[in-house]
Amino acid sequence: MRANVFRLSMAHPGDLSALDRLIADGLVRAEEIVAVIGKTEGNGGVNDFTRGYFTQSLMALLSHHLGEPADSLVKRIPCVLSGGTEGVLSPHFVVLSRTGTPLAAPAAAPALAIGTAMSAPVAAEHIGRMAHVRSVAAAVRMAMDEAHIASAADVHFVQVKCPCITSARADSATAQGKTVVSSDPNRSMAAARAAGAFGVALALNEIKEGDVNDMELLQDFRIYSTRASISSGIEVDANEVIVLGNSRFWSGHLQIAHRPMNDALDIGAVVGMLSDLGIDAAPQVTAEDRARLQAVFVKCEPDRRGRIRGHRHTMLDDTDINAQRHIRGALGGLVAGVIGDSRIFVSGGAEHQGPDGGGLIAAIAHRADNGGSSCAS
Amino acid sequence: MRANVFRLSMAHPGDLSALDRLIADGLVRAEEIVAVIGKTEGNGGVNDFTRGYFTQSLMALLSHHLGEPADSLVKRIPCVLSGGTEGVLSPHFVVLSRTGTPLAAPAAAPALAIGTAMSAPVAAEHIGRMAHVRSVAAAVRMAMDEAHIASAADVHFVQVKCPCITSARADSATAQGKTVVSSDPNRSMAAARAAGAFGVALALNEIKEGDVNDMELLQDFRIYSTRASISSGIEVDANEVIVLGNSRFWSGHLQIAHRPMNDALDIGAVVGMLSDLGIDAAPQVTAEDRARLQAVFVKCEPDRRGRIRGHRHTMLDDTDINAQRHIRGALGGLVAGVIGDSRIFVSGGAEHQGPDGGGLIAAIAHRADNGGSSCAS
Amino acid sequence: MRANVFRLSMAHPGDLSALDRLIADGLVRAEEIVAVIGKTEGNGGVNDFTRGYFTQSLMALLSHHLGEPADSLVKRIPCVLSGGTEGVLSPHFVVLSRTGTPLAAPAAAPALAIGTAMSAPVAAEHIGRMAHVRSVAAAVRMAMDEAHIASAADVHFVQVKCPCITSARADSATAQGKTVVSSDPNRSMAAARAAGAFGVALALNEIKEGDVNDMELLQDFRIYSTRASISSGIEVDANEVIVLGNSRFWSGHLQIAHRPMNDALDIGAVVGMLSDLGIDAAPQVTAEDRARLQAVFVKCEPDRRGRIRGHRHTMLDDTDINAQRHIRGALGGLVAGVIGDSRIFVSGGAEHQGPDGGGLIAAIAHRADNGGSSCAS
Amino acid sequence: MRANVFRLSMAHPGDLSALDRLIADGLVRAEEIVAVIGKTEGNGGVNDFTRGYFTQSLMALLSHHLGEPADSLVKRIPCVLSGGTEGVLSPHFVVLSRTGTPLAAPAAAPALAIGTAMSAPVAAEHIGRMAHVRSVAAAVRMAMDEAHIASAADVHFVQVKCPCITSARADSATAQGKTVVSSDPNRSMAAARAAGAFGVALALNEIKEGDVNDMELLQDFRIYSTRASISSGIEVDANEVIVLGNSRFWSGHLQIAHRPMNDALDIGAVVGMLSDLGIDAAPQVTAEDRARLQAVFVKCEPDRRGRIRGHRHTMLDDTDINAQRHIRGALGGLVAGVIGDSRIFVSGGAEHQGPDGGGLIAAIAHRADNGGSSCAS
Repeated sequence: MRANVFRLSMAHPGDLSALDRLIADGLVRAEEIVAVIGKTEGNGGVNDFTRGYFTQSLMALLSHHLGEPADSLVKRIPCVLSGGTEGVLSPHFVVLSRTGTPLAAPAAAPALAIGTAMSAPVAAEHIGRMAHVRSVAAAVRMAMDEAHIASAADVHFVQVKCPCITSARADSATAQGKTVVSSDPNRSMAAARAAGAFGVALALNEIKEGDVNDMELLQDFRIYSTRASISSGIEVDANEVIVLGNSRFWSGHLQIAHRPMNDALDIGAVVGMLSDLGIDAAPQVTAEDRARLQAVFVKCEPDRRGRIRGHRHTMLDDTDINAQRHIRGALGGLVAGVIGDSRIFVSGGAEHQGPDGGGLIAAIAHRADNGGSSCAS
Repeated sequence: MRANVFRLSMAHPGDLSALDRLIADGLVRAEEIVAVIGKTEGNGGVNDFTRGYFTQSLMALLSHHLGEPADSLVKRIPCVLSGGTEGVLSPHFVVLSRTGTPLAAPAAAPALAIGTAMSAPVAAEHIGRMAHVRSVAAAVRMAMDEAHIASAADVHFVQVKCPCITSARADSATAQGKTVVSSDPNRSMAAARAAGAFGVALALNEIKEGDVNDMELLQDFRIYSTRASISSGIEVDANEVIVLGNSRFWSGHLQIAHRPMNDALDIGAVVGMLSDLGIDAAPQVTAEDRARLQAVFVKCEPDRRGRIRGHRHTMLDDTDINAQRHIRGALGGLVAGVIGDSRIFVSGGAEHQGPDGGGLIAAIAHRADNGGSSCAS
Repeated sequence: MRANVFRLSMAHPGDLSALDRLIADGLVRAEEIVAVIGKTEGNGGVNDFTRGYFTQSLMALLSHHLGEPADSLVKRIPCVLSGGTEGVLSPHFVVLSRTGTPLAAPAAAPALAIGTAMSAPVAAEHIGRMAHVRSVAAAVRMAMDEAHIASAADVHFVQVKCPCITSARADSATAQGKTVVSSDPNRSMAAARAAGAFGVALALNEIKEGDVNDMELLQDFRIYSTRASISSGIEVDANEVIVLGNSRFWSGHLQIAHRPMNDALDIGAVVGMLSDLGIDAAPQVTAEDRARLQAVFVKCEPDRRGRIRGHRHTMLDDTDINAQRHIRGALGGLVAGVIGDSRIFVSGGAEHQGPDGGGLIAAIAHRADNGGSSCAS
Repeated sequence: MRANVFRLSMAHPGDLSALDRLIADGLVRAEEIVAVIGKTEGNGGVNDFTRGYFTQSLMALLSHHLGEPADSLVKRIPCVLSGGTEGVLSPHFVVLSRTGTPLAAPAAAPALAIGTAMSAPVAAEHIGRMAHVRSVAAAVRMAMDEAHIASAADVHFVQVKCPCITSARADSATAQGKTVVSSDPNRSMAAARAAGAFGVALALNEIKEGDVNDMELLQDFRIYSTRASISSGIEVDANEVIVLGNSRFWSGHLQIAHRPMNDALDIGAVVGMLSDLGIDAAPQVTAEDRARLQAVFVKCEPDRRGRIRGHRHTMLDDTDINAQRHIRGALGGLVAGVIGDSRIFVSGGAEHQGPDGGGLIAAIAHRADNGGSSCAS
């Protein structure tokens, strides 16, 4: 079993021509694609339709190649998009594919492993609460199993897309005498992200079930996962999970690493994560090493307390630019500067996903002993 | 003669309380203040009134302490503000003051030297053209003389505020049969910045007068100054110039350095500039060295060609967020991450100020042998 | 006793030159100014500094003319500003002044009456609650008394600026074992506006004290005042109240009228309010009648339910433009079109200020029998 | 021959469910659809992808029903979208369909007539110049012929989508030694809209060919069409034209009317246009008459001179909100208020489309003698 990663650019959110070309040229096999993670040039908010546009275009393309209806594909292949390419960030998407069967015996060196899972639908009254946490945790464990990752320590990045509570779902739950965590969509999205993060933390043994409860979601920010990247949206009713880790049952030359980021200025985490992949940044990754990097993922958050290392920031009080747009632009500038490449997936809304006021970073790279030259992207 | 630099925070654009306190405590003498450079939390555009608000508040404060009318102060003390604290950037201002007389004989080591100058008013028909270039160059040379900086090589940062062409000025010039470079305020501001940059380049021998002409302003971006930081606004009719350099005729423990930035990802320039000041960033400046840094200035620009190192950026086509806001946020994130401090002056509109698509960085720091501990700010 | 109203334009938020000129020409006496209501070109949000800039400039001007410190003036003369001149709206301010003494006996026809009052400071734990409601009601009654308006039916517009709960105030209250309605500044501002509206409704007998309680603030939007216009800000710790009505104890040729607006399309309310002033709009006010109008005030709100007369609007889900900016622009377009003048005070945040999803409109005009020709503005 | 008009709402830019339902129910026949004009909830700028998303979704739907490839449909059925539902505006689209054959003899009363045409591709060097003007004029005349509209006086609204000059097209033209009107996409779009407006004016005899030349495009704003609504985009290389008028060769109960708007406050034009359709607005259209209205189209423009009836507006200097968004919100508020319905197509960029600083309004309505009850939408 071998994972492949293709990082592709787009001219606009409906532009899948790069993937179409790779499939036409036989470099990517459509049936091997298991997940897509991308950065589109919308605003990243409720009215960001670049995500829907990209998803519709992607599923139409795959449907054309696979002869499977788009409706079915969208339930099978997680496509997680973060809107907003603020500052230097470049619109791009990462195609994750999988081929072959697990090794009969563990290899000497681990390689990138990918697992995906879809949970059962989450009822509106459970969203953003402990039942939701457990549902995410179960799905993460399923995806780990599918990926043949035995130990939580080998998981480096878990991307989850959680359902949130729409007005319709809230009304329906209320009519049945149930209560929902919030009928405000933005709040329920935050609660869902928090539950997703707790779910990942639970599955990865970062917390124990008895240790946490409903009350700590969005309250106690000392509780977090260092490997969870959660989004929430009205377009799903179940949790979609992508687990990325390293496993000795996979072959290939890719590896993944991650580090928590303590705050928005934590360049040390960026450099540390790169060093875990055998990549030096002094101060910038060399062109040769840069070619080894296949994908970079960042979660971040404007510090809730209005200060970064004692100095006031203005992100939270800005009526003109959304705070998440501000922080994505700043982290994008920092990470792109260290790496020398602006194709960075930077996503906001990092509640309980890394240290409070910070977040996390992960990257996939070719091993040093087998450089980027053979890489399709 | 000795330069002092105070970097102060503000709670809002009319908040001068930090300076008021320093003056009340005798740590700053109002009569020694020669210039202020600051970063206010506006949008940085035509309708950014945080600059006017700050200036009004500053001049009222100084007027109160000095008994000199604000109208007179505003013509004597350059106050250059860049609006926009995107991302992690923290609103702050840098007060530059000067005390004593030049050393009789040059000292062993150079120290920070500050000179200011105001040109004669620039007629509307000259703005953004070679006559404007020469006017700026003359003012820069005057400020160098005032600062006792003999060699252009010792100048590290020149901040200029240039007049632009208002509708009224354009009409008046046209009525006299003169033509103006553009009657569109945004275009005339860009032309004025370009002329300012050429003027600095001329004064610093980066270009020779015969080598350039009107046609190359905003056209040939291979021509630039590595030390010019130009703003343009309707509130001035003459060029206001602040020259910062190192001189053996000054005492004190401050020094300044600069580097051009090749593009928005040029972390090497940041680290290189710091190393010129004897400061290591591996990957971040240490707390001890950070205390030595008194001010950091950055000029930057969204690449006109729509790409950074081959990858598309979306800054120039964004109808929601102004391109200069995007790039300031990205560079702010990068530089603040390297330094570990978010009080960075980052200004856009860098035409001919550093390499095309890039810009420049400068910083003032205490010398290593006499750390930041004695510094008032 | 006679009220005068001057509607003045500004070139930017620090531009008080129009008022300065009127004072210099003897057309306005600075000591007679009792209140200012204005529309500045900021974003109307937390980071709108055009309000502070205008206030600082106004108080400096009045201080210069009156020889009274600005600190004292700001506590004596309510200056209520709404940021945001979206769409066609033109930045302007309305100066309200008062001269003479009350008539000994009521006149045949009522004339515009102005009263102002400042409440005692409102403790953080009371803001947005019934104690706050009662505090506003008491201040409104004081202002009515001062204005010699005996009957609530004669009050047509009450502008109140309420304190909100800053982090510092919240912390201080919490430290004393008190609870606050919310520590989120935006929520406490909404709660304060709601309490202000309830306070006005109470003073004007639109509701009875026993009829309402804490729980209905921001919950039961069937409860509202048709004459309350409330703003809330961190810059005040007491309620500042301006009452505008008609009284037979005042002389002069000005009158005021108002109407509630049922929704954002309620052109009937605009035309009805004008007809109360003897002004016809068929479909637009004539130039002659337009000259009689001295000030127009509008409160409005993006419908919470996401629809206007059954059709979806997109204001509440827009990450790029704040919902209040959207609705101000739309109402500004409508009212300016009916009146034929874009100097309209349009303010958002209309919780409990007029019908849910709507708001209210009020205007001051010269009586028909004594046209606008003698009017200073 | 009979025209049908269906005004449909959408939940998001990819939501064509309302049309799908009408087709499924047999109320609309997919093969009769000749054009779509819609208002999507994007920002209306270069990076507004809601237009592409809607178009892709529409063409996929029609392709599904007609068995014709989407690529072919997009070249055959003009789909003109204006992004931006500022203020009260509601996202919606108007489907224009046509059935039957022309009447053998002219009827007593004219009815709505629809014609469409596609020009030949316009070369980059011609865009925004007189050759482009002539190309549009020819296509308008073709569409008039197709619609059996003999007299220009019977044309009431002409929607044109023009190509603009992309970087690629500019480079290609330059390589062949040709010059383009501008290589700045925003400028070439404005030039293309101006050429489109001149083209319509020429076809409708509002101007004569000898009377105008290249120099007057975007210069002499006294030249305009009162019936042209032009958009420009990179997605087309030919002019797409939709002509709407009244003709005695068509049957049915629909009619169209239009009026120029003199400025952004011209409510008289709105009311006048309605009266042309036999609809009274005093001040608002009654519910009964409102049901007769099938579509309302508005073009508008922030006044270039910075003032509306002598009072300063702030639209052109706003760095936070694009000027076209401002003006659409204001006009949307005004027109929706008069009509009592927020489904108004309001489009900016009205160069030479109506009086300078104003624009135009048109509407389609059922005749009074045959009310809205039979209308499918």
